[in-house]
Amino acid sequence: MLKAAIVGATGIVGQQFIVALESHPWIEIAALAASERSANRSYKEAITSAQSGALRWFCEEPPVEEVMGMEVQNAIKMNTSNIDIVFSAIESDQAKILEPKFAINKPVISTASAFRYDDDVPILIPGINSEHAKLLDIQRKSRGWKGFITPIPNCTTCGLVITLKPIYKTFGINAVIMTSMQAMSGAGRSPGVLGIDILDNVIPFIPGEEEKTQRETQKILGNFNGTSVKPAQFNVSSTCTRINVREGHTESVFVSTQKACAAKDVAQVMREYVGETNLPSAPEQPVIVLDDPFRPQPRLDRDTDDGMATTVGRIRKDTVLKNGIKYLLVSHNTKMAAAKGAVLVAELLIQNKYIS
Amino acid sequence: MLKAAIVGATGIVGQQFIVALESHPWIEIAALAASERSANRSYKEAITSAQSGALRWFCEEPPVEEVMGMEVQNAIKMNTSNIDIVFSAIESDQAKILEPKFAINKPVISTASAFRYDDDVPILIPGINSEHAKLLDIQRKSRGWKGFITPIPNCTTCGLVITLKPIYKTFGINAVIMTSMQAMSGAGRSPGVLGIDILDNVIPFIPGEEEKTQRETQKILGNFNGTSVKPAQFNVSSTCTRINVREGHTESVFVSTQKACAAKDVAQVMREYVGETNLPSAPEQPVIVLDDPFRPQPRLDRDTDDGMATTVGRIRKDTVLKNGIKYLLVSHNTKMAAAKGAVLVAELLIQNKYIS
Amino acid sequence: MLKAAIVGATGIVGQQFIVALESHPWIEIAALAASERSANRSYKEAITSAQSGALRWFCEEPPVEEVMGMEVQNAIKMNTSNIDIVFSAIESDQAKILEPKFAINKPVISTASAFRYDDDVPILIPGINSEHAKLLDIQRKSRGWKGFITPIPNCTTCGLVITLKPIYKTFGINAVIMTSMQAMSGAGRSPGVLGIDILDNVIPFIPGEEEKTQRETQKILGNFNGTSVKPAQFNVSSTCTRINVREGHTESVFVSTQKACAAKDVAQVMREYVGETNLPSAPEQPVIVLDDPFRPQPRLDRDTDDGMATTVGRIRKDTVLKNGIKYLLVSHNTKMAAAKGAVLVAELLIQNKYIS
Amino acid sequence: MLKAAIVGATGIVGQQFIVALESHPWIEIAALAASERSANRSYKEAITSAQSGALRWFCEEPPVEEVMGMEVQNAIKMNTSNIDIVFSAIESDQAKILEPKFAINKPVISTASAFRYDDDVPILIPGINSEHAKLLDIQRKSRGWKGFITPIPNCTTCGLVITLKPIYKTFGINAVIMTSMQAMSGAGRSPGVLGIDILDNVIPFIPGEEEKTQRETQKILGNFNGTSVKPAQFNVSSTCTRINVREGHTESVFVSTQKACAAKDVAQVMREYVGETNLPSAPEQPVIVLDDPFRPQPRLDRDTDDGMATTVGRIRKDTVLKNGIKYLLVSHNTKMAAAKGAVLVAELLIQNKYIS
Repeated sequence: MLKAAIVGATGIVGQQFIVALESHPWIEIAALAASERSANRSYKEAITSAQSGALRWFCEEPPVEEVMGMEVQNAIKMNTSNIDIVFSAIESDQAKILEPKFAINKPVISTASAFRYDDDVPILIPGINSEHAKLLDIQRKSRGWKGFITPIPNCTTCGLVITLKPIYKTFGINAVIMTSMQAMSGAGRSPGVLGIDILDNVIPFIPGEEEKTQRETQKILGNFNGTSVKPAQFNVSSTCTRINVREGHTESVFVSTQKACAAKDVAQVMREYVGETNLPSAPEQPVIVLDDPFRPQPRLDRDTDDGMATTVGRIRKDTVLKNGIKYLLVSHNTKMAAAKGAVLVAELLIQNKYIS
Repeated sequence: MLKAAIVGATGIVGQQFIVALESHPWIEIAALAASERSANRSYKEAITSAQSGALRWFCEEPPVEEVMGMEVQNAIKMNTSNIDIVFSAIESDQAKILEPKFAINKPVISTASAFRYDDDVPILIPGINSEHAKLLDIQRKSRGWKGFITPIPNCTTCGLVITLKPIYKTFGINAVIMTSMQAMSGAGRSPGVLGIDILDNVIPFIPGEEEKTQRETQKILGNFNGTSVKPAQFNVSSTCTRINVREGHTESVFVSTQKACAAKDVAQVMREYVGETNLPSAPEQPVIVLDDPFRPQPRLDRDTDDGMATTVGRIRKDTVLKNGIKYLLVSHNTKMAAAKGAVLVAELLIQNKYIS
Repeated sequence: MLKAAIVGATGIVGQQFIVALESHPWIEIAALAASERSANRSYKEAITSAQSGALRWFCEEPPVEEVMGMEVQNAIKMNTSNIDIVFSAIESDQAKILEPKFAINKPVISTASAFRYDDDVPILIPGINSEHAKLLDIQRKSRGWKGFITPIPNCTTCGLVITLKPIYKTFGINAVIMTSMQAMSGAGRSPGVLGIDILDNVIPFIPGEEEKTQRETQKILGNFNGTSVKPAQFNVSSTCTRINVREGHTESVFVSTQKACAAKDVAQVMREYVGETNLPSAPEQPVIVLDDPFRPQPRLDRDTDDGMATTVGRIRKDTVLKNGIKYLLVSHNTKMAAAKGAVLVAELLIQNKYIS
Repeated sequence: MLKAAIVGATGIVGQQFIVALESHPWIEIAALAASERSANRSYKEAITSAQSGALRWFCEEPPVEEVMGMEVQNAIKMNTSNIDIVFSAIESDQAKILEPKFAINKPVISTASAFRYDDDVPILIPGINSEHAKLLDIQRKSRGWKGFITPIPNCTTCGLVITLKPIYKTFGINAVIMTSMQAMSGAGRSPGVLGIDILDNVIPFIPGEEEKTQRETQKILGNFNGTSVKPAQFNVSSTCTRINVREGHTESVFVSTQKACAAKDVAQVMREYVGETNLPSAPEQPVIVLDDPFRPQPRLDRDTDDGMATTVGRIRKDTVLKNGIKYLLVSHNTKMAAAKGAVLVAELLIQNKYIS
């Protein structure tokens, strides 16, 4: 069993890591770290409200009893000597400082965006761009690290790029237009989305999100030539909105393909696309195509394959773009596109001997 | 004062007509008609639940006392001899049968789609395509009617086409891609959208809606050459979804213009666009452009100018379409795009002497 | 394996029966019946929308493949000769006619209220009033039936009476005051609760509901003296409301006990109360007491023990009633208080040899 | 015109004060104060997000242009020499420090709870306990202040006590049991209620709220004997919950009266109860009784008389309490029970010469 540390363990993403690693066949939780305020207290104490005595446990899954007695360490001073993997669930500005410290000696898999756009840093989605893992060799060399940093993609990009991959591989892509209807959980809890603001409403702007969908999609679908990743050469133009849904991002996608293809061809390549199949957290299939025209729906479909599969529906011709195809997708923004997706990356890197 | 009959007066759209005509300066309600079941009862009796005694009044505005004592007529047998305008708030299949009967002698303004696509029937939006009213002369002649039928557009098309008009007029349009997030009220009450289906969810399909946005946009922005309307020559490709919002459709729009234009140019032509200004129900401006990047929001903006103005925000460059521009809009689907919009059409036709 | 027929199989409660019986260790589905409209079609055809081709499957659980090919029978003509149990998921007015027909020969377990208040009909909750099953002997004799009818309680009564039982048994009860905040699923789908009516709102009246909580609580906690059930001698005064929650009724309960007791005593008797423990669908404990003052919450707690346990929190002194105690409960209105609760009744009656 | 200062002007309650005082016939806004962070900036700058440039204006009503250019003062150093009334919209812990400072010279009307339970401090609701204003003379004397502090009640108590007053006056009250379903706006914005926590849910606990309903109801309905207020001698036992409603608290009330009375008697005394009628912000009637059994509903009824009237429905016999009556009420928690209610108190005190 490999030993994992979770940094930012008291926050919602940290707790999702705890859930994702419960009973994991290859990895066990060996350390929990958070800010100084939580340090040197048991995990249970650290997440118990001083005021009300209530447990501040934010996952739908029940609290994981095994970690309740573990002592939380101060992340800045965390001793990683007997740790094999660091899962980082901290905010980007902290990540910039802390993650490189850990990476000197250890593999760091991060949900933060801090290092996503560095040339020697891959944004890995196992089964979609597994070969980009080799960029980690470059990174280690260039930075003189024994470890490395590898972030997972932004949650909105994740489902998009997974559904684009089969299309890109078979038909090529000229351009993508996308409108997202994103779940509230993507905004976290600090401050998160207030109920009074989202009830009976849509928030039509999520700062920074649209730029990420372009940049990360191009990088993830880019070509690794042995030394670097050349971004895919098509634009992604998106409008990202927040709606009154708890979990599960819905995206309305319009794609211009290079080769003409019928809607049924797209459905077929999506259905036939095979991801990583030997990893414990991998979905059976990355993309599930639904025939019911009223699907996918976030509440009904987000948990498909425990939130690791992206569901697609309403694939049909678009009449505006060259070789236009349009469809909708639902992707679980706090499973595949968060902690559980990061654990999947760890599994890939364990299989590929980048972590041992 | 012109005398109006409201057909389908007991339903939600009929009630919206009653509200829209309360204290109207030019039009008074002279007759209410509904199905046989409601006939020969006072309006109040007709909308009172036999079971619970509760008033089945569905508007946010308080019930209009003036009509409560009016006798509801059987729509099939309604005597229109002393009526000047018929407002039709019935379903399409009934509209096919009843509206032509009324139109033999009287002007019929309808919220139903039954006749929208007939060549001699305009889909009027005052201030956007007022000149299409002249098609009514053709219609009268070809059908041998003293009256006519003129439907208002589908609710999703309405806000879209109002915001496209200033762009079309100044820069020309090559193509439009649109994703809608539509309010529940658009689905009416029979059966309407169930709370258990929409809570924490998106319904990604509204049968027939997407086709309407293409067909009606092309017709409304088409050119009237004296005898017919030649549809505008650009495609509208849309994905229409239903979300957990009560009123107000939000639309994410991507436009390819013929002439290159900056986002600020589009904002300017929208702001400077002048609609009909002398009609009692007309908004001061058809389009209101908001600078706050977090707007428009349906709950905050749908009631702008009593639901008659369309609000727009986040106008910016799109990187995929040729001369691409993208923005979001909010349009009140049960005001401008329903009864109150139909009353506005009546006002235009009164001004233009088509109704007297 | 006993063979079950589900009457009303195409509706939402019928589908919940199908889910509740999937992989059941003692019972298998042998017949599905519905109205004439669905008769003689495969179950899949019967629940497929003719218009859209979508499957009208309303449960969160995936459709049960095993029944999709079964032929749906016309309920009025259903042949029950090789059926051991009839589960009835039909409306009360139909239940009045159909259930007695089935009961001539077969046991009928019903979610309808049609026969709940007949003197020779028990309202069974296994583990709460299992001994009332003996009333079925009286019923058979008095009606000359080989079978019988036994309905489950109203969904709002169910959680209330389960939490009252330990109190009643140990301390006695003088009176109960209750305010419910009921989930939308309790209103079903025809017509159900419209999204536009419940969003940002509370519906403060559910016709008939409050009377049921009094009458059924008294009957279920009544004493079976060998020939009849003498209702418990205390009043239940309730106010029942509908809120914007999908599943799980929340109830705010105030109880006056006969013997004085502290809040912790009530918590203890609830925790120690043992229900039926040898039935496959029975929860480990009927009542789960939570210490966190912010619990129970319907979204977090409704699924406790797969929706078969009632969760309770905030047990504390009330200062108004004599020996007053107040608490909140959450009960799953479409699991324990619907099909799955009816299956639990079947299990009890199989164990007790009333069904074989 | 009297000159008012608003302390805490940049928060949501402060903004509601700005709206409540717009075009007020007797009072004008002469000063705005907030924390040091906002000080010495124009109000517009102070509420503009540095990050996004968006205006942080939280009211449904449009921003009040008149105050946008006013300079915000540092509350701690605010000069009140030419101020006639201080409206305090700050949190309780700050109120404890700041309000006494202002009260040395000026009348302070507060939405904070800091001083509510002091013996020489009235909790005023004009028309309900206007005579308690005389306690301010005692307060001035005992504290040696030229000014005074008078807080308004907690938002949940407000609607309750307004509906209890007519009952108390005519029939007397033995006890009250109440369950509230409170709107999210009552929790404010820092941190407020998160959308992910309240969607499809009920939060069954609001710390401190239940105690307030007992203590404040007793005090407001207490008897002023010339020197102090003797609290009303009946208990209020309540359970306070939070639901997914934006504005408007719904309360399910059970009352035991001293004299027996029928439901229709209670409806009558509520309808006939006359509050303050000569104050600009006063509702025409404090209590509006609705006959429709499906009312009051928060979304439909909260804005009655611009949120200043409390609506009541479903008045009927309760079978548990002695002379029991039960009903539901809806009260606007951020109008009558917040800034606008505080302005109403100011009006009463102006009329009574306590402010001049």
